[in-house]
Amino acid sequence: MVDLFSDTQTRPTAGMREAMARAEVGDEQSGSDPTTNALCARVAELLGKEDAVLMPSGTMCNLVSILVQTKPGDEIVVDATSHIFNTEAASAAAIGGVSTMALATADGVFSAGQVEAAIRAPVRTAPRSALVSVENTTAFSGGSVWPIETVRAVRDVAKRHGLKAHFDGARLLNAVAATGVSAADYVEGFDSAWIDLSKGLGCPVGGVLAGSKDFIIEAWRWKYRLGGAMRQSGVLAAAGLYALDHHIAQLATDNQNATTLDAGLRKIPGVAFEAGTQSNILRFSVEGLGVGAAEFAKACLERGVRFRATGAYEIRATTSLEVDAAGVARAIEVARDVAAALRQG
Amino acid sequence: MVDLFSDTQTRPTAGMREAMARAEVGDEQSGSDPTTNALCARVAELLGKEDAVLMPSGTMCNLVSILVQTKPGDEIVVDATSHIFNTEAASAAAIGGVSTMALATADGVFSAGQVEAAIRAPVRTAPRSALVSVENTTAFSGGSVWPIETVRAVRDVAKRHGLKAHFDGARLLNAVAATGVSAADYVEGFDSAWIDLSKGLGCPVGGVLAGSKDFIIEAWRWKYRLGGAMRQSGVLAAAGLYALDHHIAQLATDNQNATTLDAGLRKIPGVAFEAGTQSNILRFSVEGLGVGAAEFAKACLERGVRFRATGAYEIRATTSLEVDAAGVARAIEVARDVAAALRQG
Amino acid sequence: MVDLFSDTQTRPTAGMREAMARAEVGDEQSGSDPTTNALCARVAELLGKEDAVLMPSGTMCNLVSILVQTKPGDEIVVDATSHIFNTEAASAAAIGGVSTMALATADGVFSAGQVEAAIRAPVRTAPRSALVSVENTTAFSGGSVWPIETVRAVRDVAKRHGLKAHFDGARLLNAVAATGVSAADYVEGFDSAWIDLSKGLGCPVGGVLAGSKDFIIEAWRWKYRLGGAMRQSGVLAAAGLYALDHHIAQLATDNQNATTLDAGLRKIPGVAFEAGTQSNILRFSVEGLGVGAAEFAKACLERGVRFRATGAYEIRATTSLEVDAAGVARAIEVARDVAAALRQG
Amino acid sequence: MVDLFSDTQTRPTAGMREAMARAEVGDEQSGSDPTTNALCARVAELLGKEDAVLMPSGTMCNLVSILVQTKPGDEIVVDATSHIFNTEAASAAAIGGVSTMALATADGVFSAGQVEAAIRAPVRTAPRSALVSVENTTAFSGGSVWPIETVRAVRDVAKRHGLKAHFDGARLLNAVAATGVSAADYVEGFDSAWIDLSKGLGCPVGGVLAGSKDFIIEAWRWKYRLGGAMRQSGVLAAAGLYALDHHIAQLATDNQNATTLDAGLRKIPGVAFEAGTQSNILRFSVEGLGVGAAEFAKACLERGVRFRATGAYEIRATTSLEVDAAGVARAIEVARDVAAALRQG
Repeated sequence: MVDLFSDTQTRPTAGMREAMARAEVGDEQSGSDPTTNALCARVAELLGKEDAVLMPSGTMCNLVSILVQTKPGDEIVVDATSHIFNTEAASAAAIGGVSTMALATADGVFSAGQVEAAIRAPVRTAPRSALVSVENTTAFSGGSVWPIETVRAVRDVAKRHGLKAHFDGARLLNAVAATGVSAADYVEGFDSAWIDLSKGLGCPVGGVLAGSKDFIIEAWRWKYRLGGAMRQSGVLAAAGLYALDHHIAQLATDNQNATTLDAGLRKIPGVAFEAGTQSNILRFSVEGLGVGAAEFAKACLERGVRFRATGAYEIRATTSLEVDAAGVARAIEVARDVAAALRQG
Repeated sequence: MVDLFSDTQTRPTAGMREAMARAEVGDEQSGSDPTTNALCARVAELLGKEDAVLMPSGTMCNLVSILVQTKPGDEIVVDATSHIFNTEAASAAAIGGVSTMALATADGVFSAGQVEAAIRAPVRTAPRSALVSVENTTAFSGGSVWPIETVRAVRDVAKRHGLKAHFDGARLLNAVAATGVSAADYVEGFDSAWIDLSKGLGCPVGGVLAGSKDFIIEAWRWKYRLGGAMRQSGVLAAAGLYALDHHIAQLATDNQNATTLDAGLRKIPGVAFEAGTQSNILRFSVEGLGVGAAEFAKACLERGVRFRATGAYEIRATTSLEVDAAGVARAIEVARDVAAALRQG
Repeated sequence: MVDLFSDTQTRPTAGMREAMARAEVGDEQSGSDPTTNALCARVAELLGKEDAVLMPSGTMCNLVSILVQTKPGDEIVVDATSHIFNTEAASAAAIGGVSTMALATADGVFSAGQVEAAIRAPVRTAPRSALVSVENTTAFSGGSVWPIETVRAVRDVAKRHGLKAHFDGARLLNAVAATGVSAADYVEGFDSAWIDLSKGLGCPVGGVLAGSKDFIIEAWRWKYRLGGAMRQSGVLAAAGLYALDHHIAQLATDNQNATTLDAGLRKIPGVAFEAGTQSNILRFSVEGLGVGAAEFAKACLERGVRFRATGAYEIRATTSLEVDAAGVARAIEVARDVAAALRQG
Repeated sequence: MVDLFSDTQTRPTAGMREAMARAEVGDEQSGSDPTTNALCARVAELLGKEDAVLMPSGTMCNLVSILVQTKPGDEIVVDATSHIFNTEAASAAAIGGVSTMALATADGVFSAGQVEAAIRAPVRTAPRSALVSVENTTAFSGGSVWPIETVRAVRDVAKRHGLKAHFDGARLLNAVAATGVSAADYVEGFDSAWIDLSKGLGCPVGGVLAGSKDFIIEAWRWKYRLGGAMRQSGVLAAAGLYALDHHIAQLATDNQNATTLDAGLRKIPGVAFEAGTQSNILRFSVEGLGVGAAEFAKACLERGVRFRATGAYEIRATTSLEVDAAGVARAIEVARDVAAALRQG
């Protein structure tokens, strides 16, 4: 099958499995798992932060960043299509007691001006604006890559008003591959930043959250409280180290495959793109075919290509190490055939 | 002074004070304060609900309605200018663990279609849409009155999707005065509804929340937990009963005074209204005068008229029993003079 | 009726009602209610604190003190019979996310050593010990009065370990009447302290919470968030000022009446006291009569004397301005007769 | 080193690592990780429940069980030495808003009568008693094994009063090894029950929580919200399956080794046991040596034996697959030598 559902579906490669099987381990809770320690040091350096912590998921990286840097009654500022607002089961409110100001954007990229306008007056009747989160690339806005200037302007306005700046870097390395801007440059000045191991990097489990030493101490406290503290996590960390050694180049390939896929799909009559593809995620509409997204996806799946219906007519496709150039070609071919058949039907 | 700051500034009249001083009282917590019981029965009947409870504030009426009808991780749907989203210190999140979906509107009145589009898919990754709140009239959108058809359509879409419907009726009786639709008709089918005693009705303290018997049992539990359970509250309830007997007609007068004030202010060059005045709240801009709202309000205050600056250029004025027809005339005169002076300045 | 159920049942006197009716009022939320301001200043001075805030209930005084001085995951140390642990509907946990370490005591008075042993090690796996609360007098332990030395030792051990010290002074003025130690001496060095207006002081509604200026700013924020912010609260504050002027002596009378009642009841065969009566609350057992507390209370109520059954065999009686010396004599007489009848039955 | 610190320190064996490396994986969030599914089915069957879910930690198993089965303002009943009350960073309160009633016991085993006395009256002023948790074996009370009759009596009193019954089975399989009572018999009638993979079973990461189908649906919702949802978790689940196939017998060996260790240590003058050793955890005092626990543990560690100081004089030792019979003999020898040296010192 050509699996374009999500880069979360990536399975560990043979080399990664071998690295996991050989991992030297200890108890991460006492700081004595050498492989986990090595991964955290590696990611802290990659992101230019003092320290880092391994989490069982990217969702926990976002949640812990909010929990450490806010208190009940605070408010966070995010994009209206962000993972935090839509796909974390309201954890910021449910666990942190935190309200969310969701900014309307065309592509998941908001401006410093929007942030400034969204910050509440410091009166006791209002929520207290406490944190701004940048998600780069933007999952639900079709993989948009934030311009580094916008990232910095947003960070600066946050700092000027005393807010914390958080960087949801689930797919930050895809943005790095797309722009050549380094990961550390992207997250410079942000109080918290993380990368996901189990998306394009291909690891089975985990994300790594970085920040100051004090931040990580408090992040560990919440990781433990949430039930995210593991024991011999070196078996997972070994996959992360392997990915950072061997899968970074794959992310550029994924972006390139997405561009190729975009070019092929865009030519199909009835298929429409609202915007250009910037990283490894494509978003297009099949409304022009006169069928719903679910029907289109089902027909493709029957022919061995898995797209993801994300709206009535909206389809999302994501490239990853599960899909090579031949897979991309096959996906275009199948989509073309299915579209033709549906238009006739 | 002509006080147009807010109808929350109303002070008890002599008659109301006498009623309070004479009130028969007991312990409201054991259900034995006869005056509080009489007020709750009166409001329950007015709103067509089974039972009611006296709260120390309208803010607690909203909060308790949310707390009883949601659980952590749920989401409520409100207008983006609503009191709940902006002026309750993020209590829905801080205390209830509840996320907020804030709908963008021109005037605080959203449509059933907007609600339907905002309801989340029932997946475990999303917040669970649990409650829709209608605020009528709309405080921060200039006292807009909801058409009864819109109220009903919103309620029906909520019900169809299994959401609770809440009615923030802080100024419901102003809407009743403006439209002739009864309070019970407005809130029919809503699971919770309340009116404020300490706004146009002129009482010193309190709001009354109504709903089913089961709802009120749970509302009492949260009222107690929040610290809102009082003792001999009949002294406050007596004011409420007095207001329902003697101040209802005043609300129509307030609305009429607002219309007169609107007509007078609208003629002043440099003063601009975005919309018509529908109840006892006016909202206008002084941007055309080339001065900020704060400066305008200050100049008027020096001449004995108190407006409220609610934005860089936005002014809000609210009529109430503190302001009679002469006060309205005086306010227009002062605003005209100040505007003239500022234009020349 | 001779009402010994609780001093919460006290009704405003004629003089108090007159003071309320005459109260000068404004909007407490903008700091412009002169009567509320006067009451807060008066209580702040009484307790030797910088500032104070009026709350709708003593329950909210406790809750807000906890909310301001802890964060989720913290733990508070209290007596196992305390109002906070038993009779505030778990609000510390439900609203503050705070765990409770409940100390076992004979009479509601714990020692500094117990506190020291209860403070958690500063490890991330444990709750963080954050606040100690002293309740004086102790409601559910029969009105025990804390020795000032114990109060100070508990406060000192709290401070030495970095915990906040809170004083639940619902009936502090009864302790003052019993010992002659001043209120300010009792709460010296405590970060938060409050007195109830609606118990022995006889007001219909409210408590007043005192602390540092910064503490009160944050207390106001939570008061607002909880829905405890009122408007023309001067009508309630006037009762408080009246009580501080006219009802302080009554508390000594209440204590004396309780002593008299104790002496009378103690002579009844089958009635047993575990401890001496120290303030205005008595606690005794009717197990020796061979009947349950509910049955005993019911029989007395039929003869016009209201006791409170608080356990299978435990009865509580509380003196207040609702009960004079004749009432006390009558209560002893009725209890004696009922006991005799029940023993024969 | 002979590591008696904790069975959480167990490292995956060669066979387990191989099973992990070979694991067939998919996305656990879409229910398509076959190895995770197989492990969950296996544990559900072992515990006699309808369904199960893999968690990143036992701490999350406890937390999610509480979150699903309570609401803010509820109260749980646990042993005062329980993991939930002491070593989960107050998560029940911090995340669930739940109060804790901690029962005093000699050995972590409370009675049905204690539970019955601890259940609150159903009044709105009190917390609502909602769940009882049994921890078997008891970690911090020295590995006590609950009699099956006591387990059932506690469960029955919970059910009779409408409370949920939760079974913290972190070391349940050690209790099974000690008594021959089956795991399913122990947890029969409990609404939630779990076993830890990363203690005596020797897996690197995880616990498995079981219950009804409906319970697991809600448990998944909270697992996701907390950030515990992983992706290709089959790599971890494979270790669990391997352990259930190959390490069950080891638990009986661990218990036997603990008995041998107990017999050896007990003979050392100055070493005192409060109670007999019932499973794989020993608890003894070195107070008789005239030294603190930390000093004793340090001296042993210098000679290659790691004990755990858990109090001023209290030492805990835990057997596991990291320690064989020779290790036990060595530990006794070292403890004897150290004790002799310290007594002379």
